[in-house]
Amino acid sequence: MPKISEKGHKMPSSPIRKLVPYAEQAVKDGKKVYYLNIGQPDIKTPQVALDAIKNTTLDILAYSRSEGSENYRKKIAKYYSKNDISVKHDDIIVTTGGSEALLFAFGSIMDKGDEIIIPEPFYANYNGFSTASGVNVVPVISKIEDNFALPSIEDFEKLITSKTKAILICNPGNPTGYLYSKEEIKKLATIVKKHDLFLIADEVYREFVYDGINHYSILQENGLENHAIVIDSVSKRYSMCGARIGYLVSKNKELIQTALKYAQARLSPPTLAQIASEAALDTPNSYFTEVINEYVGRRDTLISELKKINGVKVAKPNGAFYCIAELPVKNSDKFAQWLLEQFSFENETVMVAPAAGFYSSPNVGLNQIRIAYVLKEESLIKAVKIIGEALKVYKD
Amino acid sequence: MPKISEKGHKMPSSPIRKLVPYAEQAVKDGKKVYYLNIGQPDIKTPQVALDAIKNTTLDILAYSRSEGSENYRKKIAKYYSKNDISVKHDDIIVTTGGSEALLFAFGSIMDKGDEIIIPEPFYANYNGFSTASGVNVVPVISKIEDNFALPSIEDFEKLITSKTKAILICNPGNPTGYLYSKEEIKKLATIVKKHDLFLIADEVYREFVYDGINHYSILQENGLENHAIVIDSVSKRYSMCGARIGYLVSKNKELIQTALKYAQARLSPPTLAQIASEAALDTPNSYFTEVINEYVGRRDTLISELKKINGVKVAKPNGAFYCIAELPVKNSDKFAQWLLEQFSFENETVMVAPAAGFYSSPNVGLNQIRIAYVLKEESLIKAVKIIGEALKVYKD
Ligand SMILES: Cc1ncc(COP(=O)(O)O)c(C=O)c1O
Ligand SMILES: Cc1ncc(COP(=O)(O)O)c(C=O)c1O
Repeated sequence: MPKISEKGHKMPSSPIRKLVPYAEQAVKDGKKVYYLNIGQPDIKTPQVALDAIKNTTLDILAYSRSEGSENYRKKIAKYYSKNDISVKHDDIIVTTGGSEALLFAFGSIMDKGDEIIIPEPFYANYNGFSTASGVNVVPVISKIEDNFALPSIEDFEKLITSKTKAILICNPGNPTGYLYSKEEIKKLATIVKKHDLFLIADEVYREFVYDGINHYSILQENGLENHAIVIDSVSKRYSMCGARIGYLVSKNKELIQTALKYAQARLSPPTLAQIASEAALDTPNSYFTEVINEYVGRRDTLISELKKINGVKVAKPNGAFYCIAELPVKNSDKFAQWLLEQFSFENETVMVAPAAGFYSSPNVGLNQIRIAYVLKEESLIKAVKIIGEALKVYKD
Repeated sequence: MPKISEKGHKMPSSPIRKLVPYAEQAVKDGKKVYYLNIGQPDIKTPQVALDAIKNTTLDILAYSRSEGSENYRKKIAKYYSKNDISVKHDDIIVTTGGSEALLFAFGSIMDKGDEIIIPEPFYANYNGFSTASGVNVVPVISKIEDNFALPSIEDFEKLITSKTKAILICNPGNPTGYLYSKEEIKKLATIVKKHDLFLIADEVYREFVYDGINHYSILQENGLENHAIVIDSVSKRYSMCGARIGYLVSKNKELIQTALKYAQARLSPPTLAQIASEAALDTPNSYFTEVINEYVGRRDTLISELKKINGVKVAKPNGAFYCIAELPVKNSDKFAQWLLEQFSFENETVMVAPAAGFYSSPNVGLNQIRIAYVLKEESLIKAVKIIGEALKVYKD
């Protein structure tokens, strides 16, 4: 039998994949399950985007340009300029989700054995993209006690070697919800300029910032033109995860030209989804105001409910729709499985994401879980109640 | 300034990319250009597929399962069984175009420095996917004199080393239009079994076979279960290139499990396009009969017109919608550029794809071009007439 590649063996499985059969069984057993584990919002896709699809008059669903249609990219550039980011359509490549933008960025700047520094906990699929690209993730730990703020410059510099090619941040962060300040971005700018590295910022949650704070993009930082690579996506912004449209944005021409060669090899991003995504740019502001209000309400409820539970620690997120909670358990992986398999309260239970999958350092975050507040407030209250009841009886 | 990766530097550009500005200029200069260079059919997308999109009642465009929706995969399995191929839905991963299926296959079975043997000329993007995966293409030449038939077993075996992991064929072939016979597939089966290699067959043109010949898939060959990986796509079959839906199909469980990890990292294939593609499976047979008739007419016209030109050699393709023609020129790259830049006949000219980009051996195919017969017969006649007139005056 022919052999699978080493890389293929090393590819990580999704951190919640193992739990899926237990959740399915729980449902079969008649339990109601609250899914706090996934980043699939329950928010409606803007009507303008759905209408654009219904009204399309295409009769041949043809390839688009590899870099995305020019019109669409021009409208994206306008979107950025409204957000105080000045980029041209030529600085943008439309990709198949932010996921593909990450792959193009990794492929364009790193070879096998190169290193990328990422503050952890981080979006679990960074591990997958790194393995697929033959790249090594070098984690720098950010701590729940510090609300997951940026680690110190010294912490980064200790890790920089001749193999280091980039620093990757997620801003605001999945799974932490942490929003980096302007000062923190400036610190990162100093490091990457000094050591001649790329700075990749995954800004797919850029619109999800709360409490009147402004998002500061790495593209707003002067002097970072050749270093900054932004990963963006329509997935969460317009609740269009299934569209599979994202962008790679950079003013570094060589980087864009290189990423374009990856884009050409795979021919084109999805055409229908581009039509919907272009229309989504006309979503009225009221949509976002409502969505943000909704998330702020959910976050506040979630955090205050969690704080009521003895022994639970939680950082208050200023962005995205995730938070990390520390539980009085030894191994949240086992706890999460137990919740689905053995526990119920009023015939209901909860699915959470064990946080270990968001760390690449071994044995870190074992007592943490990630909660996505993608459910309505009443459901969040019930779900946290269930966690509280569960912790009263759970023994590990 | 931070540096681009070695891999990024090595990524090939599209073989016709260089010519695009010349084509744009020709159009600006008021010339009509016949585009024989691209594989974007002018055939209408089946109405059932377009209607499915218009009639969708989704209000949240959510992620689908990473491997594609179960319903859709079950319907795909039925499609295969109608084509005498017995696979289960679990043997299928829905991908973002055949392109992504190729990437998943390469990543699942090869590591940096591994080798894949491909009969050349071959689909140019195999080079891109190989470079992106750090893999080396080892070409085995098939010849226009032999109508691009499968090279001999000895030719393959001479090239097999400890690094060889797979043989990749395209059946029927882009750019040759060659359809492999059952006997040729059996020969390949013998080689891959003897040397414990994977056999990847890119069968995206499987429905485009002419002259009453049947397509023989590697999935129909007994004993090849653990070796065979099929790449498939809706792009050409339903003239839905912009959908970006393809499949990876294999009965090798370990391979599918590995490819699934790549699929999970990028979350999901496009949801709207899956809806359209699932509906496309209900396309009435009459659609295909018409399309095949159309292509046979085009092919016959193209070949007979080309044969009228002095010094032009052409192999008769039995499948797909491409052919390779050998011209009485030294360098078809220069000729193609000259056609756009300097030549016109009755104020019209032609864009062709120089064939060198379809070879990975250096200095092979320099006098060949690839013609895609994706235009109506009248246009093909005019386009070939232009090539004939051009050759009368061209000097290289
Ligand atoms: C931080 C982050 N980056 C990137 C992605 C990828 O999203 P997509 O490929 O849907 O744009 C996600 C999805 O959850 C994410 O959370
Ligand atoms: C031989 C071959 N394989 C694969 C592809 C990729 O097609 P897609 O990604 O649109 O399915 C093409 C497209 O032209 C092709 O010609």
